Amino acid sequence: MLAVLIAGAIALLGTLIGTKFAIKALVAKGYGQLIRDDGPTTHQTKRGTPTMGGLVIMLSVVAGYAGAKLFTGTDPSASAVLLLFLFVGLGAIGFLDDWIKVAKQRSLGLRSKAKLIGQTIVGLVFAFFAIRIENDNGITPITHHISFVRDMTSWSLPTVLLILWVLVMIAGASNGVNLTDGLDGLATGAAVMVFGAYTLINIWQSNQNCARELVPKCYEVRDPLDLAIVAAAITGACFGFLWWNTAPAKIFMGDTGSLSLGGAMAGFALMTRPELLLVFLGGLFVIITLSVIIQVGYFKLSGGKRVFRMAPLQHHFELLGWAEVTIVVRFWIISGLTVIAGMGIFYWEWVSGAL
Amino acid sequence: MLAVLIAGAIALLGTLIGTKFAIKALVAKGYGQLIRDDGPTTHQTKRGTPTMGGLVIMLSVVAGYAGAKLFTGTDPSASAVLLLFLFVGLGAIGFLDDWIKVAKQRSLGLRSKAKLIGQTIVGLVFAFFAIRIENDNGITPITHHISFVRDMTSWSLPTVLLILWVLVMIAGASNGVNLTDGLDGLATGAAVMVFGAYTLINIWQSNQNCARELVPKCYEVRDPLDLAIVAAAITGACFGFLWWNTAPAKIFMGDTGSLSLGGAMAGFALMTRPELLLVFLGGLFVIITLSVIIQVGYFKLSGGKRVFRMAPLQHHFELLGWAEVTIVVRFWIISGLTVIAGMGIFYWEWVSGAL
Repeated sequence: MLAVLIAGAIALLGTLIGTKFAIKALVAKGYGQLIRDDGPTTHQTKRGTPTMGGLVIMLSVVAGYAGAKLFTGTDPSASAVLLLFLFVGLGAIGFLDDWIKVAKQRSLGLRSKAKLIGQTIVGLVFAFFAIRIENDNGITPITHHISFVRDMTSWSLPTVLLILWVLVMIAGASNGVNLTDGLDGLATGAAVMVFGAYTLINIWQSNQNCARELVPKCYEVRDPLDLAIVAAAITGACFGFLWWNTAPAKIFMGDTGSLSLGGAMAGFALMTRPELLLVFLGGLFVIITLSVIIQVGYFKLSGGKRVFRMAPLQHHFELLGWAEVTIVVRFWIISGLTVIAGMGIFYWEWVSGAL
Repeated sequence: MLAVLIAGAIALLGTLIGTKFAIKALVAKGYGQLIRDDGPTTHQTKRGTPTMGGLVIMLSVVAGYAGAKLFTGTDPSASAVLLLFLFVGLGAIGFLDDWIKVAKQRSLGLRSKAKLIGQTIVGLVFAFFAIRIENDNGITPITHHISFVRDMTSWSLPTVLLILWVLVMIAGASNGVNLTDGLDGLATGAAVMVFGAYTLINIWQSNQNCARELVPKCYEVRDPLDLAIVAAAITGACFGFLWWNTAPAKIFMGDTGSLSLGGAMAGFALMTRPELLLVFLGGLFVIITLSVIIQVGYFKLSGGKRVFRMAPLQHHFELLGWAEVTIVVRFWIISGLTVIAGMGIFYWEWVSGAL
């Protein structure tokens, strides 16, 4: 347990202190964010704020995990290493994207096809190992079952479909965070809640693990305590980053941040098992993604009509005249409620066994 | 457990919906907040925003608790009733204060002596019963021991000193919240975290209660589950109120809100036992109160010099040029960290028994 706190504290200090220097270095080099021409016009004032802050988050998380492992003197687990691989791998793709935007002064970055190929490769490597590596009890980080709170063991997915499912989860979550990122602090604050929830879920699964004796009801998961350390590190890193990312933002996380954080969310959902529970834990990201799907779908079907003034949803409210901070805090409230609902369902299942 | 969620949900809906109508009614009657002449000059723009929003919080909390009790069909416990008495009693004093401000158009409200007398009377009634009412196992809501995480049973306070201690806790906490209230959403957001923590602590103490069998290590507290219902109701009410109270605030909680919420914090600290842990759980309120004590003390000792540009601390940063929202979110981060530290200490004691 102490290792979980240590990882969180190191990562927190990492972003609290590291981001300050990153801002200075990026501003000195003139690496500012370019603003989409199709966003709200008020966002033009954000031009010039440095991006790629996700890089500091990534480094801090790795440092937090490494520090905790040095402290406990234990070997890294397969699950944690795979999760960090997914986290850093997607972050690297995001970084490339951010880099091209800044270097070429082009607002759209990597071509979407190249980005998708990169995400798919990282996802495939992750899935390949996560399905295979068994521990002494024969438990793998990811199973062949889809899960809501627990695996639905009555039917199992063929490996090809399972890999496809993993890829869909990863693409969905990382695009969800990407779409949500766009108002100062919005995605970062919501991410703190989601990863905080995964820290608690992992600690709980570790305490109620089937490998332990005398647990009345147990979870068949691999390496939950080590995953809790990773989740705590990400929570701490996001919390520290929020210090600088809140309005008026001194730095943005960029695709470096949103792809890596989204990927990690999918990774935790797959490894802790409550995969479909991510719809609640990441509720805000789901709502915002849906707003884009609805907007685009309706636009195409209706031949040019719109449901929202602008998608993603946060821009709709901006155009309705809500202040940026009002939207951010209200969306955080919504996120807090969906996280509480998700945790409630998770705990409810354990208490009642109804699901 | 379901009752806890129901109480939270009712109170949340109560403030989400009720505050909208309260704003309309208060604005229609022209009951706006007066701004202290000695605050930052930028705050003059807040003149006219309705206050006394704490009234909606109080009503919603009582409705949430009552709803949960109707649902479970159980009798209210002594602890919960006493806590609600403290909450509503202090809120009533705060309401009187707010009312006089608005009616007399005088920024300072009740004279501080009258306010102190009122707080003392409510505190005395609360203490008198909380020390006396035993349950079947002879456990009272408040004990004669001071506690950090658990009662320090090696020595006990004489009743007179105990009552004084209760009064000091109540006065300290309610003034702490009162001082923290002043930037849009600041106190409300921090209160969500504190009462969220008390909800978890009470649930935990209920699950690990000495009255239950087969618990390896237990807590000697009265009515923890019923207190969890109250804490959840307050958490939900504050969360819903934040929707309207966040920048730019449509309504303030007023002394109605700050006195009642502060009193409830003290009440939970006394009843769950980790009294001194409130220094961590309410860390932000403590820091802000200290800033005032330091400022005033140094001013008097040095014959007119200041440590901060202005106290309470939030105004110091305003005068340093931080945007209001930046201060609010950064102070929330600090609050989140102290709450996590407090919860960590609480859980650590249970795991290790070291404290």
